[in-house]
Amino acid sequence: MKPTITIEYCPKCGWLLRAAYMAQELLTTFADELQGVLLMPSEVSGRYTICIGDQKVFDRKEIGGFLEIKEVKQLVRDVVAPGKSLGHADRKVHD
Amino acid sequence: MKPTITIEYCPKCGWLLRAAYMAQELLTTFADELQGVLLMPSEVSGRYTICIGDQKVFDRKEIGGFLEIKEVKQLVRDVVAPGKSLGHADRKVHD
Repeated sequence: MKPTITIEYCPKCGWLLRAAYMAQELLTTFADELQGVLLMPSEVSGRYTICIGDQKVFDRKEIGGFLEIKEVKQLVRDVVAPGKSLGHADRKVHD
Repeated sequence: MKPTITIEYCPKCGWLLRAAYMAQELLTTFADELQGVLLMPSEVSGRYTICIGDQKVFDRKEIGGFLEIKEVKQLVRDVVAPGKSLGHADRKVHD
């Protein structure tokens, strides 16, 4: 069973578009590795988390902000497809 | 428990963008009524279905094409929030 990614976002913060953008990036890059991406409006203000199955891999409140999409892809890759190269998105940010 | 909508789309047909667009429309209109929207790439060529929980409310192959977004919203509204007005999106298409 392929994993499902859940992006829980605060709709009052206006993060639906951000979450939908990330979903499309992940579904493009990991088209064969994912069951799907669930966009879930949060009832908790300011929440933005990304979970792979039950495993939380990103929490805005812990980090104090957002990651660049290439960093998000690296986090997801490390769990769902450790051997997969992300090409130019595998370089560190600000290289 | 609020219902989850699943949009299963054929990635080879290039329908990810369409599915993500519909997800955003539904999450905007039914922000308080939905648990979330799951974007799920299909392994079946040409598939594009919309399910509310286990209930299929749209199947491209049965209809022979796609619906306008206002019609999709009407289908979803009738299941998740029957009393909800969709405003100008409640008029028939081509009025």
